[in-house]
Amino acid sequence: MPTSEQEFLRVIDRHFPNHGSGLLLGRGDDCAIIDTGSPFCVSTDIFVEDVHFRREYFSAADIGHKALAAAASDLAGMAAQPVGFALSLMLPDDVGDVFLDEMLGGMAALANSLKMPLVGGDLSRGPKLALDVVVFGKPGPSGRLLRRNAAQPGDALLLVGEVGLARAGLMELEHMACSEAHSWPGAVAAHLRPEPRIAEGLALAQIETPDGPAVSGLMDVSDGLARDLPRFLGQFGAELTLRRKDLHPEVAAFFTAHGEDPVEAAVLGGEDYALIASAEQKKLPMVLAALPQARVIGRVSAEPGLRLNSGLVLRQGFDHFAKPGKG
Amino acid sequence: MPTSEQEFLRVIDRHFPNHGSGLLLGRGDDCAIIDTGSPFCVSTDIFVEDVHFRREYFSAADIGHKALAAAASDLAGMAAQPVGFALSLMLPDDVGDVFLDEMLGGMAALANSLKMPLVGGDLSRGPKLALDVVVFGKPGPSGRLLRRNAAQPGDALLLVGEVGLARAGLMELEHMACSEAHSWPGAVAAHLRPEPRIAEGLALAQIETPDGPAVSGLMDVSDGLARDLPRFLGQFGAELTLRRKDLHPEVAAFFTAHGEDPVEAAVLGGEDYALIASAEQKKLPMVLAALPQARVIGRVSAEPGLRLNSGLVLRQGFDHFAKPGKG
Repeated sequence: MPTSEQEFLRVIDRHFPNHGSGLLLGRGDDCAIIDTGSPFCVSTDIFVEDVHFRREYFSAADIGHKALAAAASDLAGMAAQPVGFALSLMLPDDVGDVFLDEMLGGMAALANSLKMPLVGGDLSRGPKLALDVVVFGKPGPSGRLLRRNAAQPGDALLLVGEVGLARAGLMELEHMACSEAHSWPGAVAAHLRPEPRIAEGLALAQIETPDGPAVSGLMDVSDGLARDLPRFLGQFGAELTLRRKDLHPEVAAFFTAHGEDPVEAAVLGGEDYALIASAEQKKLPMVLAALPQARVIGRVSAEPGLRLNSGLVLRQGFDHFAKPGKG
Repeated sequence: MPTSEQEFLRVIDRHFPNHGSGLLLGRGDDCAIIDTGSPFCVSTDIFVEDVHFRREYFSAADIGHKALAAAASDLAGMAAQPVGFALSLMLPDDVGDVFLDEMLGGMAALANSLKMPLVGGDLSRGPKLALDVVVFGKPGPSGRLLRRNAAQPGDALLLVGEVGLARAGLMELEHMACSEAHSWPGAVAAHLRPEPRIAEGLALAQIETPDGPAVSGLMDVSDGLARDLPRFLGQFGAELTLRRKDLHPEVAAFFTAHGEDPVEAAVLGGEDYALIASAEQKKLPMVLAALPQARVIGRVSAEPGLRLNSGLVLRQGFDHFAKPGKG
């Protein structure tokens, strides 16, 4: 059995060619892009009980919400406009009618707010609750989809959303009684109820400068900056400048209280569902004017590797596959 | 917990609207059709260990093949041309590297023959082996996709493929030792290695008569004729004429040997992955000339219900959801 997602992807690549006449972009980005006359984005996210969530502290509605949110975040990461989604459900015998109803209700509320119709799916009994969500998208008003591997050395790196907050929430939920979880409401909400940053992705793709589009590359941060930034940067590296004051107050307080360095914990992160974008320095003011919640967290360097506040980040981020039961 | 797929679909319909500006055809046919400028077909099939297959008698390559074949059959059922597919995998700890390699190899061989690139997917650990396959398709050379609910009273009903053969194979595999299974090689192969009838679906859509397209409606028979025909016919019914000589020789022999009526067992069927089509009587000769393997098995009647050789079919077909462990 492959011991990491990376190793698994090598097995996949050995069997399946990653190109085809109808394929504009193959596997390896937030979404694949199929050529249907116009570009059509597809991405898949599987959400499995006791691997990605626990029924002990996820409400039924949380489960429905997060399964779709995690998948939709991949559309956000390409600046795609949602078109619809498909849901395959594996239901164990102990899921009752009320639970199912609430779970689908949580999913439907998010689907409705994102204007994503459910276009199909399948259903099976099974030993654990599992939801496989496939999302479909298309270019937004900008007509543009933003990919990884587009940042150039010197470009600014921008973050939209919080890093480390969902990680704090997961730790809290895994180790504390439910009643105590309310000490960290932002962290717990970030883990249970992430919001896919569809609007922000679309807005980033629309920022035009006299020299062309402001944002060169975009990606959703789902496995933590430490793991996802190398995927975003390709052959290049980054110098990150991230201070305690740049973090959500709960991230700073939580990790300090648990004897961890908050900045390092935030970079390690996981399930952040934030967006990371790159832009030429000269275009930065227009980006920040258009999307004030975007924050500069560093710059792209020609040398590979991640340096955090001038130190080297060595630790790896999040791998759902390698760490069962942890998120 | 819903006790049938029908009941589950009612819960789904309560939460999720089955229409949207970008949706040409919602849930309820073999595929949904998304409007991407041109029609784009999507269908999902989940394939779960000990619900849809057993590792005791499915080889790893069989599992990979059948998971994709079952999903691709829904494209065949709309006369769609395959474009690609996504795969979400849930892997238990006891799946070794060799097994995984062979499983993906079996899937890749079929994907290659159907010219379907793997455009994405996801991976998780989980308690059982499960494969969720999402297939994508587009209209073939005819420019046409064929739907259910298009047959009119008087139309001929045509079958492409065998019914009851996979059901015999399942019974044989479930109840006999592996070594004995070879007494019924056709039945066993039909259960382990169904072939999606993509070419036949495309061919049916291309048959033109002076009065327009020959084939009005098309559907894949995956849950057996008894269950799927009412879905195909909508408000109408059918008079089926199916004799022992119309069945695959193994179907006739197997069910006779097991004390069941072979014709009734064939109509009950399940996992046939055959195609059912409707055509006006006057267009029938052109259909049979173009696709000689198509067989007339009856005609559409104005009254609902299925009559088999002038008797009434009462028994229901196959529901993966209602009958865990049976196919």
